[in-house]
Parts: sequence; structure tokens; C-alpha cells
Amino acid sequence: MIQIHTAKDIQNVTKNYRKEGKTIGFVPTMGFLHEGHMSLVEKARKDNDIVVMSIFVNPMQFGPGEDYEAYPRDIERDRQLAADGGVDILFTPEPEEMYGQEPTVTASVKKRTDVLCGRSREGHFDGVATVLTKLFNLTFPTRVYFGMKDAQQVAVVDGLINDFFMDIELIPVETKREEDGLAKSSRNVNLRAEERQKAAALYQALQRGAELIRDGERDAEAVKREVRSILEKTSGVIDYADIYSYPDLEIREPLTGKIIIAVAVQFSKARLIDNIIVDIPADQKEDL
Amino acid sequence: MIQIHTAKDIQNVTKNYRKEGKTIGFVPTMGFLHEGHMSLVEKARKDNDIVVMSIFVNPMQFGPGEDYEAYPRDIERDRQLAADGGVDILFTPEPEEMYGQEPTVTASVKKRTDVLCGRSREGHFDGVATVLTKLFNLTFPTRVYFGMKDAQQVAVVDGLINDFFMDIELIPVETKREEDGLAKSSRNVNLRAEERQKAAALYQALQRGAELIRDGERDAEAVKREVRSILEKTSGVIDYADIYSYPDLEIREPLTGKIIIAVAVQFSKARLIDNIIVDIPADQKEDL
Repeated sequence: MIQIHTAKDIQNVTKNYRKEGKTIGFVPTMGFLHEGHMSLVEKARKDNDIVVMSIFVNPMQFGPGEDYEAYPRDIERDRQLAADGGVDILFTPEPEEMYGQEPTVTASVKKRTDVLCGRSREGHFDGVATVLTKLFNLTFPTRVYFGMKDAQQVAVVDGLINDFFMDIELIPVETKREEDGLAKSSRNVNLRAEERQKAAALYQALQRGAELIRDGERDAEAVKREVRSILEKTSGVIDYADIYSYPDLEIREPLTGKIIIAVAVQFSKARLIDNIIVDIPADQKEDL
Repeated sequence: MIQIHTAKDIQNVTKNYRKEGKTIGFVPTMGFLHEGHMSLVEKARKDNDIVVMSIFVNPMQFGPGEDYEAYPRDIERDRQLAADGGVDILFTPEPEEMYGQEPTVTASVKKRTDVLCGRSREGHFDGVATVLTKLFNLTFPTRVYFGMKDAQQVAVVDGLINDFFMDIELIPVETKREEDGLAKSSRNVNLRAEERQKAAALYQALQRGAELIRDGERDAEAVKREVRSILEKTSGVIDYADIYSYPDLEIREPLTGKIIIAVAVQFSKARLIDNIIVDIPADQKEDL
């Protein structure tokens, strides 16, 4: 594995691979790698000749009151994990490399952002879309890999790639789960033992919601009520338990097409999110 | 010359040329071609294996009160000119092809827009940057060609390419002029005979301003006064006669580095713009 720090170098190296006809799988991260990230690398490894990973804590996607400085970093450990996982090129730029002077042009996300986690993070997705536009132009990816744990981010990246006609295939990768169904996350270690045990109810609630829809329920409110009643077993504070079309993230009443059930629960020292996607076939729209 | 209408087709064709190692020169236009456009084609023809021209009247860069519907179109004549000029691929998409549904992501221009023509056209450059991002991703240009007549547009494209790390070389092409110095423009035909004669004063004013700076004048206000006094000979209404750093378009006092003098004059049925760029060498900053 080689490690690259400058925009110019990464662009030269990746451009040459593409000229040679090689495919590039790109995994953008903010580092502090866990099994979720490594499952993206594993998939990218299978699909492509070259795997590029970026580790960049992007200042532009943190709001004024947010934890940019406190965001966990451990580049030595990350480098080892990336190398072991089969990453060929690790791109670790400094903020000044990615944002030279005050920007003239940024990406602006107009939809899919005023719901779920985006509702409380104004400007967050502009930062995500801007840094990804830069990173995509620097790494010439054939395919890019994102975890479905952050389904809203995947929806925004889908919009970015489609609206800008980027010649890139978006590969959403299924959420990795513990044996009891809890989505893997760096934040799980911040759960108290009792909270950890009850946290499995997040995924149970999502599964129950999906089951209701598959059984013919088309009233989003009815599904949400059931999801919430199971979430209450976590004893955490429910931040949201919502249902939208996916990836448009719009209210769909009655429920039709591709639907996301997404939840966020605040525990004493960790806020967990999770989601499930249900595809309602066109021919069973109204009643089963 | 082949003509292409869909995003998918143009992307496939241009991508294949790049795969074969060919260079692509791209000339984006809104059509109604004149000698200015053809000088861009001529330059692109010299520098590249393949020349791609787009003709697309971009609705997003027209404001609510502006003349999107009335913008002149003559695709038959344009097609002939493009073919004669040596264009290999003419891309003529419909608006629905470029803007499918309501956009999720657009480009947003944060600087270089609140001066000169941008001051009175809110959102105009967001539209320009958005459509160019799309067109660049569809045509894989090695080089893109823009006329310096619209120097502010060139400054915005410079920001777009640099900030997004686009792997594209921006080639600004010098303004084509009539024998008396008047910048060539489709709008010149709307000048009355008397106005046409006096319109040469636009370029005379710019040349006199540049001469003052070259002779050591570093006070922008003094240069502007002289430029305005010559512009008054046109009998048109002076919209602006401004001096900024280039391409940042910021006030620089005293004048140093790369400087643009830009003017706009309203005649009875045409508004003409023109500009000149002066490079002040570092070693003669203050006094000669």
C-alpha cells in the first residue's frame, strides 16, 4: 500500500491506472476505521483492480457547534487496517490541501436534506457533496462505496452523481450487524452494558415495521406507531422514527415503491441510528 | 461532424476517444454562433485531436425577468458553421435531458459574482457553473475554451475547475475585434450607424486605462476617471467602468498584480461589454 498526501500526486497516480484500463474502487472515509468501513473495502477489492481509500476529516461538513476538533483520529491504526484489508492507495490530505483559499465554488444540496439527521445539521450535506466532488475528481473512481447505515448520505451521493452526470457507479453496501442485529458502529462502545443489551430493539423495531408493510400495511402512521412502541423498550430517547420514499426522502402516502424506515435513539453517551429499506412491488400497491 | 442529442450518447462517444488516448477540446456555447465562437473552435482544433461543441441555451442561468424564451436560436445555421469550422461532435441536448427532475445538487458560486455583470444577475453564475459541471462530466475535455470577452465567466470557470480539482485545462481566448477595435458581438448589429461609429471608444478607453497603469499609475480611481471620460464619447449610458484584481475580482489598492479594467455601456438597443487585462510586474509595483 502506498500513502499519498497531495492532490496532485493522487490525481496523477489514479489517472495513470485508468489510462492503463484498470478499474478503481474508491472508499471515502473520515478514518477511525471499523468493520463497517472494512466491509466496503472488501467489496471494492472484489469488484475492482485498484482500491483507493481516503481518510479525511472534512471540516466543511461540521457545523459551528459540532465536534470537528474532537472527532476521533488514529491514523497509525487506520493505516494498518487499510493495508491489511487490501487497500492499494491511501489518500490522507491535510485540510489546506483540500481547501486552499476561501472557495469560489461549492456543491449545494437542495433536496433530501431537511429530514432525518439532516434536519438538525444545516450545511452538513453541502460539505459532504463538496468534498466528494473534489475527491471523485482526484481519484477517477469506476465505483464508489458507501455504507447503507447512513442511508441519507447515500441518497445525497445518488443525487450528486446523477445530477452532475458523473461517470461513476454508486455501490451502497449493506449495514454490518452484531449477532443480535445491532448495527456495527464506533459509537457502540459508548453504550452502558444495560443499554447495549436493550439496543438490539432498534433493529427489531425496523424489522417489525418492514414486516407490517410486507403484510400489506400502507399507512405510514400505523407503521411508525408500531416501530416507536418497540423502540421504547431501549429506554433511550427516540430522536426520530420516520418513513419516507427512498432515495427521494419524501412523504409517500399511502406507502408505495421503495420505502425507508429510519430511526435515531439517544442513549446516555451515544446516539445510534439505523434503517431498513422495503421495496413494495407495483402490483401489490394497495392490498394483498 | 456528428450531432448528438442525449447525455448517454455524448458520454459514451467522448469517453471512448479518451480511452484511445485522444485529446478533446470542448467549446460550450448557447448557439447563434459568431466569429468569437469560431475563434474558440479554431484554437481547439489546433490544440486537440477531437473538437466537441455544445449548443445549449441553459435555462438555469436566466433569471425570472430575463430573456430565456427570446434568446436568439438558429440551429440550422449553427450546424453549418460548426461543421465548416471543424467541429467533430456537436452536442445539442434538450433542457429535459440536462435537467431531468428538480435538482438535488447544484453548483453554488460564492465569490467573483457580486461585481460587474454578476451584480445585477443573481443566480446567473450558479446556473453557469452547474451546467458546465454537467457538460464537463459528459464530454471529458482535455481543454475547455472560453472567450475573454466575458472575463467574469472565465474567472468563475477558473474557480470551478480549481476548487473541484477538475482535470481540465482552461484556455481563455483573446477577444476578436473589428478593425477599429470594437469587440465582435452578435449585439453589434443592434447599434445605430452613429452609435456604431462612436462604439470604438469602448476599446480606446480600455487601452488608455491600460496605458496609464503601464506608465505607473497605481490609483484605481484616477484610472477609472480617465476611462469614463473617454467612454462618454460613445454617448451611451455607462453601466460600469471598474477595476479589479483578476481572476479574484477584488478591489486592489494600490493596483498590483494582474488587473482587469472592465466596462459596460448601454446604447439605445444594445448593451456592450469589453475589458482589458494588465499585468503589473512585481518589480514595478509602486513607482517606475
